[in-house]
Amino acid sequence: MPRYRLDIEYDGSPFVGWQKQANGPSVQGALDAALGAFAGGHTVPRGAGRTDTGVHALQQVAHVDLERAWEPDKLRQALNHHLLPAPISVLAAAKVSDVFDARFSATQRHYLYRILVRPSRPALDHKRVWWLRHRLDAAAMHRAAQSLVGHHDFTTFRAAACQANSPMRTLDQIAVAASGDEISLTVSARSFLHHQVRSIAGSLKLVGEGQWPEARIAEVLAAKDRSQCAPLAPPAGLYLAGVDYE
Amino acid sequence: MPRYRLDIEYDGSPFVGWQKQANGPSVQGALDAALGAFAGGHTVPRGAGRTDTGVHALQQVAHVDLERAWEPDKLRQALNHHLLPAPISVLAAAKVSDVFDARFSATQRHYLYRILVRPSRPALDHKRVWWLRHRLDAAAMHRAAQSLVGHHDFTTFRAAACQANSPMRTLDQIAVAASGDEISLTVSARSFLHHQVRSIAGSLKLVGEGQWPEARIAEVLAAKDRSQCAPLAPPAGLYLAGVDYE
Repeated sequence: MPRYRLDIEYDGSPFVGWQKQANGPSVQGALDAALGAFAGGHTVPRGAGRTDTGVHALQQVAHVDLERAWEPDKLRQALNHHLLPAPISVLAAAKVSDVFDARFSATQRHYLYRILVRPSRPALDHKRVWWLRHRLDAAAMHRAAQSLVGHHDFTTFRAAACQANSPMRTLDQIAVAASGDEISLTVSARSFLHHQVRSIAGSLKLVGEGQWPEARIAEVLAAKDRSQCAPLAPPAGLYLAGVDYE
Repeated sequence: MPRYRLDIEYDGSPFVGWQKQANGPSVQGALDAALGAFAGGHTVPRGAGRTDTGVHALQQVAHVDLERAWEPDKLRQALNHHLLPAPISVLAAAKVSDVFDARFSATQRHYLYRILVRPSRPALDHKRVWWLRHRLDAAAMHRAAQSLVGHHDFTTFRAAACQANSPMRTLDQIAVAASGDEISLTVSARSFLHHQVRSIAGSLKLVGEGQWPEARIAEVLAAKDRSQCAPLAPPAGLYLAGVDYE
């Protein structure tokens, strides 16, 4: 069966997450149903990252095996047609070799976490940002975040339910920047643990508020103790922003 | 009755527009109802610009007279509470003098028109942009647009139903810029005619596609003939981006 790579944007608000589940609509399920409507035999699309309920994607990558060969751009168009009216858009489709695996071939994943800081709630970015009323010190957050760069045991920043075999991960880059009333956290690694970015965002928020000194991020990392993590940042601010391959 | 200025952000998608109408929910109507829920006697809020169905605002400005005096930030909070769950957010409230009129005191209005250019439809920016599949020449659009700057008869770029007494307007600034797969048109004037920005956006799109030579914008302006305008750009891409006062 020929294999295709799909690059996908979605608004995560109406979904239980990427992964097909019994308890509600998922992005994977919507793609599977769209393929079923026109492509005949196919495997369930497998994604590079399993985004949680309410988490968005600017560029998720998935692979799927189809019974018959498709001109890639025709596949993209047919998928987008059959996905309507779901807020999912297939940005690109490409024929790839059988050894391409959206999850295991990925060399780098990029996440974006958006925080809106102002007294009034977002009207246009409702469900797209973490809305906080009070000023955050983005420069302090950026400095504190640098202690997370490198190869570490991220037990503190990992969901209790995380199924990864190891809490060791290599965080390649992390940055916090302010622009107008928005603060963005960008973070890159080969792979992430479950809830890792939201755990980091929640902890850096306490640094930004001055509730935690900057050094506390390095301390709670070193503690390897989930109970020392700050409350999780909400899913609405999180975006899978891109996935790199060789 | 004390007068208050309100700065307001809204997602125009679910509304028939700014203005209260019999045929559906409006932003003005939602504000009026919210005031009715807690403020007692009040005038209908009057806005700086009457945005159409589906048009958004990053910063609409309105004024309202209330029966009793309010601490301005308490007014902002009460309004936001009673506006829920409408996608309208009062960003600021301020006590102003009785001579302040959101519409007539405005010295400058700024509009933004967003165009997304890519093969696949927007998932995250659904109803927030004009989606076009094929590349536009933003530099050509920018050059062509400059012929609109200054004091002109804008009959060509004015809705047939426009109620303004005169088609004469002074366009102070217009710019077209590309960033990634997005093209933004920004335009500033003391006041605008009905459908003026969408008429300009629709015409510049034809220049961007190469269907119109750049000089055609100046020609159709000089023609003072509505039938020479390109089809109107859709409302979803348009944002009232700001209003200036002395």
